[in-house]
Amino acid sequence: MTLKASELAMVPFVSVDNMMRLVHHIGLEQFMADLADAIEADFARWPAFDKTPRIGSHSDVGVIELMPTSDGALYGFKYVNGHPKNMKEGLQTVTAFGVLSEVSTGYPILLSEMTMLTALRTAAMSAVATKHLANTDAKTMAMIGNGAQSEFQCIAQKAVNGIDTIRLYDIDPAATDKCMGNLAAAGLTLIPCQSPEDAIEGAGIITTATADKNMQTILTDNMVGNGVHINAIGGDCPGKTELHRDIVTRSSVFVEYPPQTRIEGEIQQMPPDHPVIELWQVITGQATGRQSASEITLFDGVGFAIEDFSALRYVHGRIKDTPFYVDLDMIADPSDPRDLFGMLKRAG
Amino acid sequence: MTLKASELAMVPFVSVDNMMRLVHHIGLEQFMADLADAIEADFARWPAFDKTPRIGSHSDVGVIELMPTSDGALYGFKYVNGHPKNMKEGLQTVTAFGVLSEVSTGYPILLSEMTMLTALRTAAMSAVATKHLANTDAKTMAMIGNGAQSEFQCIAQKAVNGIDTIRLYDIDPAATDKCMGNLAAAGLTLIPCQSPEDAIEGAGIITTATADKNMQTILTDNMVGNGVHINAIGGDCPGKTELHRDIVTRSSVFVEYPPQTRIEGEIQQMPPDHPVIELWQVITGQATGRQSASEITLFDGVGFAIEDFSALRYVHGRIKDTPFYVDLDMIADPSDPRDLFGMLKRAG
Repeated sequence: MTLKASELAMVPFVSVDNMMRLVHHIGLEQFMADLADAIEADFARWPAFDKTPRIGSHSDVGVIELMPTSDGALYGFKYVNGHPKNMKEGLQTVTAFGVLSEVSTGYPILLSEMTMLTALRTAAMSAVATKHLANTDAKTMAMIGNGAQSEFQCIAQKAVNGIDTIRLYDIDPAATDKCMGNLAAAGLTLIPCQSPEDAIEGAGIITTATADKNMQTILTDNMVGNGVHINAIGGDCPGKTELHRDIVTRSSVFVEYPPQTRIEGEIQQMPPDHPVIELWQVITGQATGRQSASEITLFDGVGFAIEDFSALRYVHGRIKDTPFYVDLDMIADPSDPRDLFGMLKRAG
Repeated sequence: MTLKASELAMVPFVSVDNMMRLVHHIGLEQFMADLADAIEADFARWPAFDKTPRIGSHSDVGVIELMPTSDGALYGFKYVNGHPKNMKEGLQTVTAFGVLSEVSTGYPILLSEMTMLTALRTAAMSAVATKHLANTDAKTMAMIGNGAQSEFQCIAQKAVNGIDTIRLYDIDPAATDKCMGNLAAAGLTLIPCQSPEDAIEGAGIITTATADKNMQTILTDNMVGNGVHINAIGGDCPGKTELHRDIVTRSSVFVEYPPQTRIEGEIQQMPPDHPVIELWQVITGQATGRQSASEITLFDGVGFAIEDFSALRYVHGRIKDTPFYVDLDMIADPSDPRDLFGMLKRAG
């Protein structure tokens, strides 16, 4: 029992460096496919989870959020900030870390960086939505917004859905150059485009991942043809959208967790009763996804706590017997649990 | 700018071992006095803080909670569990860790163990309440419940309020023996007692820190004499109280944050409009504390996020230029913040 307590008192920690090593050890595409499987498996048991909108602390320049959830056996939460002005200061707009714990004891069993892991799971989530909603013959994706999330989206779509061609557009050509450079050896056909209209030409999938925090209309209605699937990833907080509302009106809208998406997603532009379909119900077969080849499907992704839970659960399962973590002395472990003071005294 | 990002990408981590070394480096009584000062200073600027009740995830066997707060410049949160059945399994009932971040960037600046630190700040909080509410000639304290929190309470009262005599009682005599052994060299007169009635004889201060999770009446009304100050520390969740409601009725009740205390504290036994006085208003002079030498004052302490914030802020200020922390690679720091993928790719 003392041994068990001592073991539990040490919390495995996956640093940024070790996360990157773990990804390369497993292989980036395999990691993405595994993450997509983990997310899909957890979405398939959606009712088992405690769900609550994220808990935010807002300031003039950004937000710090805690995103907890639990499936009754494991509890996870993510700390994540969002500071658009950070970029200009050479800092990340979004940084994150997360913790996974045992519900039965309350003891943490994993502390992990999640800046990298969030980028990975966000892309895996889009791939899962695309798998269930896009026309199956769609092998070309338009990638609108070629910033920090773009390469992850492209790799995930290749790994999960066999996408072979990417048409890239960014308002800043340097971002497109960066994205193409990073994906040069990825086995994808890359086509740089001069406008959003050009990028979506012939694409069965459109993914938007732009970052500006004000009501944008990256895509307007007359641009979007029948039958496409859209992943709108960049609109993920109040005041931040990417699509003209006429596109939303023409589309069947699929969401993660409606109470959160109605505040943060593209549908914040719509009336509060705008019809949405919960993606987990499509995955379990309780709701229909795409109804015809000509329908426009829209995944209004904002990122939900269960996706982080899935990612932490996956990482926790993969680090055993690897060198990709270190044990942290985070939890006090007195030999007699009633004698915390004695432990302190003996350390003196 | 790159240098700054790199520095921010590393998060100082204070382990349990280093926390104990820091306490001994500063000196336990000095640490307690400093913590009390930090808490008092933050209570004095109470309106500056974002306040929200803790966010709990409940199961049959316990709870896992997140307790966030912010003063606009710094943001802090604590992860804490409460699993009463853990003790029987050789585990801690309560374990905790916390994070302090910069509001301006969202970047964490401290990760710290908080099992030990919570025990310390809980005691410092009682000492602050006692300082503002007890009769000034009270130098004897009854310590009812001699478990994991008891020694901390005694040391804090000595350090902050000059308490010189402790009358100890626990339903389990072994707990009293343990407490007396731990405090043998603390410079306190220790008097073991056979009953709660015996323990409170002549004590100007009564501190209850018992742990059982059901409506207890450790103290009944006819036991408590006029003029005492009571710190009721053990009643800190729904269904867990220590005092008979007649004592509460006879007392002036002082609380941390009313919305939380009405759910978790002794006053959960009382009507929802039972009058309470917020301790921060006593500290700032906006409310009166003790009104007469014969009044019974009751600090119905449940533990609030601002106390954890104060403790994290204090530790953060004290670890600079010490060996009592290590830097953790928790935050991804790509040289170009838009190029997270390039950072991952280069690590391969």
